[in-house]
Parts: sequence; C-alpha cells; structure tokens
Amino acid sequence: MIQVGIIGAGRIGQVHARSILTGVPEAHIRAIADPYMKPEVAGWAKSVGIENVYEDYHKILDDPEIEAVLICASTNLHASISLEAIAAGKHIFCEKPIDQSIGKIEEVKKALEASPKKLVYQVGFNRRYDHNYRALRQAVLDGRIGEVQFVRVSSRDPEPPPAKYVAVSGGIFMDMMIHDLDMVHYLSGQDIVEVYAQGACLIDPEIGKAGDVDTCTITMKLANGALATVDGSRKAVYGYDQRGEVFGSKGCAVTQNDSESNVVISTVDGVTGEKPLWFFLQRYMGSYQAEVREFIECILKDEAPKSDINDGLLSVKLAIACQKSLQENRPVRVDEI
Amino acid sequence: MIQVGIIGAGRIGQVHARSILTGVPEAHIRAIADPYMKPEVAGWAKSVGIENVYEDYHKILDDPEIEAVLICASTNLHASISLEAIAAGKHIFCEKPIDQSIGKIEEVKKALEASPKKLVYQVGFNRRYDHNYRALRQAVLDGRIGEVQFVRVSSRDPEPPPAKYVAVSGGIFMDMMIHDLDMVHYLSGQDIVEVYAQGACLIDPEIGKAGDVDTCTITMKLANGALATVDGSRKAVYGYDQRGEVFGSKGCAVTQNDSESNVVISTVDGVTGEKPLWFFLQRYMGSYQAEVREFIECILKDEAPKSDINDGLLSVKLAIACQKSLQENRPVRVDEI
Amino acid sequence: MIQVGIIGAGRIGQVHARSILTGVPEAHIRAIADPYMKPEVAGWAKSVGIENVYEDYHKILDDPEIEAVLICASTNLHASISLEAIAAGKHIFCEKPIDQSIGKIEEVKKALEASPKKLVYQVGFNRRYDHNYRALRQAVLDGRIGEVQFVRVSSRDPEPPPAKYVAVSGGIFMDMMIHDLDMVHYLSGQDIVEVYAQGACLIDPEIGKAGDVDTCTITMKLANGALATVDGSRKAVYGYDQRGEVFGSKGCAVTQNDSESNVVISTVDGVTGEKPLWFFLQRYMGSYQAEVREFIECILKDEAPKSDINDGLLSVKLAIACQKSLQENRPVRVDEI
Amino acid sequence: MIQVGIIGAGRIGQVHARSILTGVPEAHIRAIADPYMKPEVAGWAKSVGIENVYEDYHKILDDPEIEAVLICASTNLHASISLEAIAAGKHIFCEKPIDQSIGKIEEVKKALEASPKKLVYQVGFNRRYDHNYRALRQAVLDGRIGEVQFVRVSSRDPEPPPAKYVAVSGGIFMDMMIHDLDMVHYLSGQDIVEVYAQGACLIDPEIGKAGDVDTCTITMKLANGALATVDGSRKAVYGYDQRGEVFGSKGCAVTQNDSESNVVISTVDGVTGEKPLWFFLQRYMGSYQAEVREFIECILKDEAPKSDINDGLLSVKLAIACQKSLQENRPVRVDEI
Repeated sequence: MIQVGIIGAGRIGQVHARSILTGVPEAHIRAIADPYMKPEVAGWAKSVGIENVYEDYHKILDDPEIEAVLICASTNLHASISLEAIAAGKHIFCEKPIDQSIGKIEEVKKALEASPKKLVYQVGFNRRYDHNYRALRQAVLDGRIGEVQFVRVSSRDPEPPPAKYVAVSGGIFMDMMIHDLDMVHYLSGQDIVEVYAQGACLIDPEIGKAGDVDTCTITMKLANGALATVDGSRKAVYGYDQRGEVFGSKGCAVTQNDSESNVVISTVDGVTGEKPLWFFLQRYMGSYQAEVREFIECILKDEAPKSDINDGLLSVKLAIACQKSLQENRPVRVDEI
Repeated sequence: MIQVGIIGAGRIGQVHARSILTGVPEAHIRAIADPYMKPEVAGWAKSVGIENVYEDYHKILDDPEIEAVLICASTNLHASISLEAIAAGKHIFCEKPIDQSIGKIEEVKKALEASPKKLVYQVGFNRRYDHNYRALRQAVLDGRIGEVQFVRVSSRDPEPPPAKYVAVSGGIFMDMMIHDLDMVHYLSGQDIVEVYAQGACLIDPEIGKAGDVDTCTITMKLANGALATVDGSRKAVYGYDQRGEVFGSKGCAVTQNDSESNVVISTVDGVTGEKPLWFFLQRYMGSYQAEVREFIECILKDEAPKSDINDGLLSVKLAIACQKSLQENRPVRVDEI
Repeated sequence: MIQVGIIGAGRIGQVHARSILTGVPEAHIRAIADPYMKPEVAGWAKSVGIENVYEDYHKILDDPEIEAVLICASTNLHASISLEAIAAGKHIFCEKPIDQSIGKIEEVKKALEASPKKLVYQVGFNRRYDHNYRALRQAVLDGRIGEVQFVRVSSRDPEPPPAKYVAVSGGIFMDMMIHDLDMVHYLSGQDIVEVYAQGACLIDPEIGKAGDVDTCTITMKLANGALATVDGSRKAVYGYDQRGEVFGSKGCAVTQNDSESNVVISTVDGVTGEKPLWFFLQRYMGSYQAEVREFIECILKDEAPKSDINDGLLSVKLAIACQKSLQENRPVRVDEI
Repeated sequence: MIQVGIIGAGRIGQVHARSILTGVPEAHIRAIADPYMKPEVAGWAKSVGIENVYEDYHKILDDPEIEAVLICASTNLHASISLEAIAAGKHIFCEKPIDQSIGKIEEVKKALEASPKKLVYQVGFNRRYDHNYRALRQAVLDGRIGEVQFVRVSSRDPEPPPAKYVAVSGGIFMDMMIHDLDMVHYLSGQDIVEVYAQGACLIDPEIGKAGDVDTCTITMKLANGALATVDGSRKAVYGYDQRGEVFGSKGCAVTQNDSESNVVISTVDGVTGEKPLWFFLQRYMGSYQAEVREFIECILKDEAPKSDINDGLLSVKLAIACQKSLQENRPVRVDEI
C-alpha cells in the first residue's frame, strides 16, 4: 500500500483523490494540502477517510510515511514544488504543464537525474490513458499502421473560457493545444522537428483583445519525415470534439468522439445520434483514473511512466514554438526554442 | 447481340427498357407491347430506337428474331404469357409473383421442363442483385458466417398504398413481404419448412377494412434447423427501410440502409445523417439493371439465373402459408400448401 | 445515510457491494452474509470497511440499524428471504428472477401489499439502467417514436454455459431470455398478451441432451396491438451481442453494441472496428451501479423503482409461456399462465 | 437537343461520352476527334451512334451544328483549343487544369469576356458534382454550419503513378491536390488568401528523384479569416480515401468514403466493413455524369456553371503557391502569384 499526499485541493486534485478512492486499492491518501482549503472540501476529505488535511503542503513533504505526491497546485508552483518533492525523495505525479518556462523544467529534470533515489516522475497527460487514444497508439505499436506518414488531431472545446482567464492562460497553444501537441508526439512515437501555426479570432473578440486566438491550425514535421496537422477551436456548439488519425504505409487508424449512448433515432428530420460528451471531465474521466492507477503501478513495479518529464518538456517547447510561429508567420524549428 | 421484346410498358417495363438501353450493350430491344400503350410511351420508345411498338404482345412472340422476352404485364397474366412464350421458345424474364396460384406456377414449371429448347426462366427478385444483399449473401457463400443459425430481415415501406389497391393486392404477404420471404431463402441458401405470421392494423384503418394488415412479423424454421424472423410495416416515416442480418457459427453479417449522401452534421440538436433513400426505384435502381444484365448473360453463357422458377414457386407458397398462419393463428408447415 | 445489508456474497453480491462503495455515497454497507462465506471475501469485506461478516443472513434481518437489504442468494431462496425481509420491515433489492414459480412471487407480492410499512421492492433488471437502453426508452417516453408498433431485441451470449448448468437453469427462456422479455415490456411500456417461441439446438448438442435449446426466437403481441420479436443465441463468437430497436408512428430508435474503443483501422483487409465488449459484467457494469444507486434513491425520496415486483412477475410468466409455446409449438396467451 | 463534339478520345473523353449517351438525353454527340484515334475507340463510337469520328478537332470547331465542345485533350492543349473554340462560338467544358500557366488561363478568360456570344465555360472539377461533397456544400449554403471557421480535406490515392509520369505531371499540387485546393474553395465559398505547404517523399524514392513529394499537407487562410488544412498522399493501401469536413459557428459537417456495399461482418477478428472504392472512376462516376449533365443544362437554361474559369484560375494559382511555399518553406500569399 502506497501512502499518497495530494498537493492542491481544487477541481483536479479532487478528481485524482476520487480516482484513488474508487479505483486504486493499492494506494491510500494520507494527506491533502491546500493554502486556501475550503471547509466543504476539508469535510469531504475527512468523510472519505483522508486523515490529514493541511494548508501547508510542506507537511506532506515532511511526512516520511508518504512515498508519492500528486502536484495539483497552480501551474506557476509546479516546478518549485517538484524540486522540493524530489529533494524529499517523493515519487511525483505533476499536472501539466510542468512550467511555462523551459529553464525551470530543465532544472526539475536535472534534479531528477541527480536524485540518489530513483523516482517516478509522471506528467498529467491524461489523454494518453484514454481508451480511444490508447487503442490508436496500440495500433501503431502493433505495426498495423506500418511506418507513420501522417498524423491528424482535431481538438475543440465546447465553450471558450472567459477572456479574463485567457489573458493569463499562456495562450491557446500553452493552455489548450499542449494536449494535442503531446498527442501527435505520443501517437507517432516521433519527436517533432518543426512547427507552423496559424491562428484567428473568430469566436469571441474579447479573446482577440486579450492577445490570443480562438481558432488555430498547426502543421508539423516529425523526426522520421512524417507530417502532422492539428486543428483547434475554443467553441464547438455540439460539444467537446476530440478526434485523431494516424496514417501510414500499412493503413490508417481513426478515433471518433464518445457519447452518452449509441442510440440512433430515425424520423422525418433525419437519422440522429447523440452529441459528443460535453465536458472534458466526463469525456476523460476514465483516463484520469487510469493515469493515477498507472502512476501507482510504476512505483510498485519500478517502471517508467507513459508520460515522463521529457514529454512534459517537449510539449512546452512545442507550445512556445507554435506561439513564435504564429507571431512571426513562419515555420519554427523546435531546436530554435 | 440478343434481340429482346418487352411485354408490358408500364412503370416496371420502362425501368427494364432503360436498364437495357443504358447498361446492357449485348441486348437490343426490338419491340415493346402493351394493350393500353400510352402515346408518350410509344413516342419515347421510338426516340430511343425501339423499332416496333405493339398493342398485341403476340407479335413479339411471333417474331423469330426475338430470343428473349421480359414479362412486365399485370400479375394475372404472368403465367399464361409465360406458357405462350415457352411454347414460342423464348427465354423469359418474368416479374414476381409468377402467379398467386400454386397450380398455375407448377403448370409453367412443367412446360419449362418439357420444353425441347433449354430456356432461361428468371423471376424478378431484383433485391438478390442489390449490391448490399449480394454482399451479404457472398459473406455466407464465402463461409465467413459459418453455419447459418439465424436470419433477420426488416422491410418497411415509406407510405402505405391506397386501401383500394390493398383490396386487390393479394394481401401484405403476397404483395410486399414476398420479397422478404425470398430474401430469407436467398441469404440462407435454405428451404423454409414452417412459418408463423402475426399481423396488426396500426397505420391505416382502411387497410383493416380491406381485410389486410399493415404491420406484420413472420418467424420461420429453415431446413437446416436455423430460425428466421421478418418484420414488415407499410409506413416508416423516415423512408424506405430495408435491412438484413445473417448470424452463424463463425460470425454475423449485417446490412443497413443506403442514403443520398453519407454527410453527417453535428449541431446543438445532435449528430444527424441523411434518411434512407425514400423510394424503392431509387433504392434498388442498381439491382434492376443488374438483374436484367444477368438475364442476358445467362442466355449468352447458357447459365442458370440466380432466381429461377423454383424460387418463384417457393415465395408464393410462403406467402400463402403466412396468410393461412395469420388467419388461423398457428404455425403452418410449407408442405401443407 | 442508509445502512445496507447484502445477503449472498457470490459474484453478483460482490458487484453490488463494490457499486455501493464506489458510487453510492448515501449508502453504507453494514453487513454481508453468506452461509458459504469464503475467507478471501470476508477479508476483502473487512478491508473495505464492512464491519459485519455473517454466515447467517438472519443477523442482517435482525439488525434494526439496517434499513435495506440486497438479496443476492441463489434463486430458490429469493422468495423466502423476501418474505422474511418484508416481515422485518426492510426495503428490498432482489436479484432476478424472484422465483421460477408464479405462486411464490404472488405470495411475496401479497406480503408486500400487506406490509404496514411502505417498502421499496426493486427487481434486478439491470439492463433497464443501462445507458443505451435507458436512452432508447427515453426516446419512447419523449414521444419521438410516436405510437409503438414494433419492438425488436437481439441477445447473444459470447459462450454457452456448461450443459450441467443448463440442466438446472430453468431453460433458456427463464435463465437468459428473461432479460429480453423484460426489455420488450420496458421499452414499449406495454403489457405482453401472447407469445410464440421457436427453439433449436445448433451450438452444443449437450444442451439439447439436457432438454434445452441454444438458439431461439420469440414473437409477441403487445397490449396496444404492437408486435415484437426477440432472438437469442447462446454463442456469438464475436462477443456479447445486445441490440434493440423500437419502431413507431413517428420514427425508429436503434441501439447497438458498445466496445472497448471506437478506433477503426483501415488496411488492405478492410475497415475494422473493435468487437463488442465480451462479458456481461464489463458491458453492463454501469447499469449495475446505476440500479443500486436508484434503489437507494427510491428509499430516500420515497419513490417507486423502475423495475418492481409486477415486472418481476410478468417476466417469469413470459418465460413460462415461451417454454410452453416451444413445447406445444403454438402461440400461448400470457393469461393462460 | 444540343449537338456536342468531344475533343480527345482518351479515358476521360470516353467517360464523358458514355455519360452523355446514358444520362443526358438533351445532348447528342455528333462528333469525336483525336489525332491518335485508336481503331477500337472509333469502332465503339460508331456503334453507339456517334456519326463523325475525326483525327483533326478543327472539323468539330468548323461544324456549325455543334454548339458545345468537351475539351479532353492533353493539358498543354487545353488553353489553345479553348481560344479556338471561343472564337468559333462554342460552349466549352474544359478538363482541369485549364493550363499550368496563369498567363494562358488569363488569356482564355479575356477571350471569353470579349466573346460577342455569351458562352458557358465549365471547368471539370467533377468532385463539386459528387453526391457527398454537394451535400456538404449544401449544408454550408443552408446555414446549418453557420460562419465557416475551419475546412479540412483529406485526399489519398490508392497507388502512386509511375515516377516517369510524376516527372512531367507538374508536381503533386498541380497534378493531384488541385482538386482538393478547389474543394476548400468550393466548400467554404471563400477565396484563399495564403497557403503554407509541407511535403515529404515517404512512399516511393523515385518520386523524390523526379523532384516531387508523395506526402503533403497544406494549411490556408481564407478570405473571411477561416483556416483550412489539406493532407494528401499518393498511396493509401486500403483504397481511394476522400474525406472532408466543414466546421463553423453553428456546427460541423463531415463526409466519409463510399464503399461497394455497407455490409459489416463481425467475427472473432473484429467488426469489419468494406474498404473505400478503390478507383477514382468508380468513386466519382456519378459526379462525372452530373457535371456533364449540368454543363448541358447551363447551356439550355442560360445559367452559370458551378465551376467556372475563375475557379480554374484560382486552383492553378493555389497549386503554384503551394509549390513555391514548399520550395521556400514559408507561407505564400496567393496575390504573390
């Protein structure tokens, strides 16, 4: 039984806590910490058997019983808490992005490599653990697609965030498309060499005023010569639209959206099925549980996680390269970053 | 080049004429006959190069140049014209049903067997030549389904016929479901041993007053022990609904409807595709051309047609057995008929 | 917080226990009982916080703290434990079938009606709580299908049970098709008036020797005049095949199988998706949790469950009528039973 | 009845001839010309009632009975024959591309505008007349997609052409992707402002040696600010892969491939449907007939064709811009060309 501490008790911290409680019997949540811990969250934590509810996460790092921490604090703290947790010898599951600065992530990476104890460091790219994307990746690994020649990812949110949030989000590439940049890397198993990004503000003019775009495309060259396209939108009125495709010398694998049911109704108006699941927590709930389960398994079996610090680093480099490409309207090599 | 005569210049006669003109280069329509030939049809016939337009079909039978006839007259004349055409040594394509009376069909069968010239006699079960049903049958023939254990056919018209027509139609089993009864036989490759039919009048009370039902189910036992169900309706508001399924020891093959395009539109209201093609001529146009093409090929290559007089006989027996089953509310063995 | 006792610690008892532990926070499992309680199950129960592990289920009935019991014992005990639990004033969730005898179910029904305390009595027709079937039913309730005219249910297991089990199972209608008989009733919202069943032994001759069939079809007349067909098989090599369709005056709703992912792979061999989920526990896991959640909600909100004792009674009558129909090869009215 | 002359009796000339013979009763093919007319083609032409078979196409232009010509000669002659036909006052259907040189197309355009007789000039972008793409466009025109924000086209051939052909083809953008460049323009109803193309040689090294790529992506900015991506491949082992998508403020419309039948077979190996139609003539046969039918209708009704000389001009500009973008690895504005 692995003793776990959760740092950050916001939405995603609670999601991970529930995942462990209901689906990871090999882990026990010994403590949860949040500087702005809400009383109802503290109450809930107690009710589900989490003995220790702290404001100061250092108490988690100082607890020798705790072997693993989940870093669910705000993004700007991920790197510094990571460094402290590495120093304390804890295995780490860190939400993405590790940081918006390449330098800070590299600092974490160095600390990790220098750690006398071999530590699991998993980055929260939950979609890699989604049943559909995992099956897509598996088709590639099984050789059913042959040599990868083209990858496509479509990613559309059901509703744009408030412009106020957009202003501090780091931009659409860092805030939203980072998952899809990682997905191209994950599905293809290839490093990305060069990106070219286009963007437009077509949905909410306030997003444009905040200096960001709400619609974008990214094309990429991969290390093996393959090409990729990603398209993103902040608003698909029909729901959360998440699809991908890998094409290669032996075939093509495609994944579509999931919906609440597969019922199809034929009437005078047409043949109609349900819309995609609306909300990312609903769409990806299975993947949230799977990623935490794998984190614990990696610790128990001394294995490397599916999404590690290098993946975390690459995704941030890609997001920065996309932003640069958009600003300068030119293809940007990743090694420029 | 086979010289062909068409007997009956109504809708289906014209369909076959067009099929030959546009898709069967090995055949030439030398004559078309109809006792009530409309002037515009006669004019059209001339314009497309049909030299002879008759009122009396005997002129076709008497023409020694004509090797093959298509009998598209009204059902009550199919058998007698067949007998005359056999006597005249013509190959015959006859619309279904050959007759509503078993005795008359058997008479045709005997004449055919007694003919000194080997004649092709093909019955117009056009659906056997449809791209979807043919692929379903092919899956069975290829052994991909294994031993057939269950067959299902769903058959729904977009709109009921006028009650006046229903009164003289021979009833839903003879008029409409005969295609589906034949389809179970065709798909399974099995004789049908016993049927049980249920019916209800749920769509148009006038159909009930005319002594018929507009909704029905049929269950069957096949010669190899397999089971089958057929369901029929005179009115599917979303269009002509034609689906089938064959299940066996190695798998299951299913065919769905065709539609005008495969475009799917996602909006706030759902994920919507097009309705099935509305009209049987639209849905099955390819099969009408294919069946006539095969008729000519059978003559040229001295081969047996996919749907012969035995199939025509069995389908009528099945329709009669279903009617009897409905009336007596009991399973009826086909050998009772 | 409702205190719950689980009677029967076999597979389905454990499924319900897990459902409550992970998804029904308003309920607490206070005790579990089984005369043949396995040590590892007892250990597991303790580890997840079930304080009391009994051999004798009467200890559950005698515990005044316990308000609700889940009867997961063997079928032949369902009725007698139900009677005792009613006498003890407990709300009851009872696995299906309540009993194979109509008389015993009616006894339970009378006791329930005579109980001074109003008790929830829910029967374990879990499929009614499945996301797909619930959506199908909802389409009917919403009036999108109009007047129901036809219902179809296809139900195929991935593998037949051992012939030894078949011999004591009560036959395919009572053991397997009872879910599908209930489904026709649930989807249509109609009583069933008459059934006609056909059966064949096509999969395993041992099943035939045990006096049962492994392939069957059932046709039905519903109270509103609608018709229905059900087809069943003990072995679909491609997995657990569970589909349904409701057709009516305004349209048609269809539900298909679920699979592990929606990935589709195109290669030289075809365009291939995943097989249906193989095992009923995997396919219907969500429904198992949903039915227990609804049971607790019905108690808390004083509401009637979606599947009550009348549904349990009807389904057993239908299974008996089907068996009689098969033996006598004739349609059987449900009021004969 | 419009008298038609066909200039060029190669594959596509014959396709158009057959389309007219079997599906355009308002047109009569009076002559066909080809400097290298094969005897079997000449024979076939005679047999289907084409009275005049010429080597010199000027005989067609000189025939005052002929009102319309179809230019199906080799690409390098399209422009000069167009100019002659305009001078002769013929309506023109011209295969794409009109020419690989912008200057020559503009010359044709000027001649057309200067013609005293108003002439129909239709360019052979047959896919605009395909049932699926037409339905996709219709969804946009009907306002069901709202403001277009993103367009995607995927286009993959089943097999690469010989490298020898590639060397003289004008490159992948001019030879193959020109259809897809046009499709983005057609579907969106927007001019294209800027393109960025990537390419790789991943399939056949000989194509690389011939100076071309076999895999490519194109991203575009449209006049209304929308974005688009196109991806192309010379070889999809599963068949001719042609899909498109239009996304906007009110929804998203997607079209998939067509196949020979919709039969789906479930076995132990998966749930498998048919591959896409393999060959472009098979996939787009309906569109070939529809485009010629519309050409004749435009003449008869004095209407503008769906694909005119401006569309022909834009597509060539786009192909040239893509080639430039690939060579210089930078986004290229269309007004640079």
